[in-house]
Amino acid sequence: MYVIQSLQNTKVKEWKKLTTKKGRDKTGMFIAEGWHLTEEAVKAEAAVEVIVKEGVALPSYLDSADIHFVTEEIALALAETEHTQGVFAVCKQSEADVENLDLSNILLLDAIQDPGNIGTMIRTADAVGMDAVILGKGTADPYNAKVLRSAQGSHYHLPIIKQDLLSAIETCKRKGIPVYGTSLQNAEPYSKTSSQKKFALIMGNEGAGMDEDLLNQTDHNLYIPIYGKSESLNVAIAAGILLYHLKSE
Amino acid sequence: MYVIQSLQNTKVKEWKKLTTKKGRDKTGMFIAEGWHLTEEAVKAEAAVEVIVKEGVALPSYLDSADIHFVTEEIALALAETEHTQGVFAVCKQSEADVENLDLSNILLLDAIQDPGNIGTMIRTADAVGMDAVILGKGTADPYNAKVLRSAQGSHYHLPIIKQDLLSAIETCKRKGIPVYGTSLQNAEPYSKTSSQKKFALIMGNEGAGMDEDLLNQTDHNLYIPIYGKSESLNVAIAAGILLYHLKSE
Repeated sequence: MYVIQSLQNTKVKEWKKLTTKKGRDKTGMFIAEGWHLTEEAVKAEAAVEVIVKEGVALPSYLDSADIHFVTEEIALALAETEHTQGVFAVCKQSEADVENLDLSNILLLDAIQDPGNIGTMIRTADAVGMDAVILGKGTADPYNAKVLRSAQGSHYHLPIIKQDLLSAIETCKRKGIPVYGTSLQNAEPYSKTSSQKKFALIMGNEGAGMDEDLLNQTDHNLYIPIYGKSESLNVAIAAGILLYHLKSE
Repeated sequence: MYVIQSLQNTKVKEWKKLTTKKGRDKTGMFIAEGWHLTEEAVKAEAAVEVIVKEGVALPSYLDSADIHFVTEEIALALAETEHTQGVFAVCKQSEADVENLDLSNILLLDAIQDPGNIGTMIRTADAVGMDAVILGKGTADPYNAKVLRSAQGSHYHLPIIKQDLLSAIETCKRKGIPVYGTSLQNAEPYSKTSSQKKFALIMGNEGAGMDEDLLNQTDHNLYIPIYGKSESLNVAIAAGILLYHLKSE
């Protein structure tokens, strides 16, 4: 068993770059940390390489994986969590294009900032059976370690697409998919809308809400009533309520 | 303007203790950080004292507050965020007792671990108009800084009660409030249940779900169907979907 020893090793330097947005953007790859995400990556045949800290017992699903063993020091250098399990999957980013996919249900994220919110919304979109998640400009990188962790492997279950949302809305319209925006003004309570065979739902920035230019292009705008004294709902919670309300079985 | 200079000042030592669970439990107080939470605390008349870093401009809602000015060093010592705004509200914990409240809608949390999840559920419970949130044993401290931050001030809007959940369920039953558990086994899809004037909803631990002993005491158990490939929903997302479904306007 060959164990990579040096932080200066070319492979290690490449992997380390994937812990930055710049490195991910340049290569179109990402690195997922921990047993759960590695297992999901391998099972989805999305893992190009697997990195394992020396001394860690290997589960059988890694039998045919391309495994690189590394020292604890290297594992710690790649880790984004405090107590790393010392296992990582190196994966290709989704190259799906909304034009070429057969989509009926799409979640669009407009300038969502918090990685936990993005990951949770990807996980919820997966759970409710959406066909894709599209991230517009200003939304944090979906391959950020915190997003991956919150999504719990859903990145491997549905296409995650980075695309300008105005062009995505155009595509939806051309494909006959009604587009629902979210807004407190000029919107109707979500409960007045029944479930839909086809729909695209847009969630907006945590503080500022959806971009005005996007709101002008939607077919309908929905809001969730606040009955108590809080000013608003967390955006991922709002997405969960709307997705489960709109999605027909 | 007197500015407290020393980290050894008795007041500072007392405040510092409130950044630990032990200190909070002992005194029944907590400390909330940042302008938003401080404003909410003052407006709800829940702030016993306000702490402000010297040089910070004071908004008018602090006109009648008991303000203590401190050095930047002290503000940093009290801060739980990386870039502190240097303003804090010292508050009393809720002393509400489920026995003495007129409650119709209650959210119960069983062994929820993640502070972000707890805070988000408190915020959602507030938004949907619940009357109280009850936290059972094993649920993280609701006055933890991360819980306060995620709840965005909802701690000041509804009673947050620490209580054994078995006894809380008994109280609900005595008061004629039907209790809904959440479980994947022996449960029905939530959409089969219509909205309820009165209900208590119990959400369980992120990994293990609800305690068996509690599940045996509920009137109904609900689950949220997973249509995609994810294994489960985040617990706060599930709570949002169920609360907005069950709550009648």
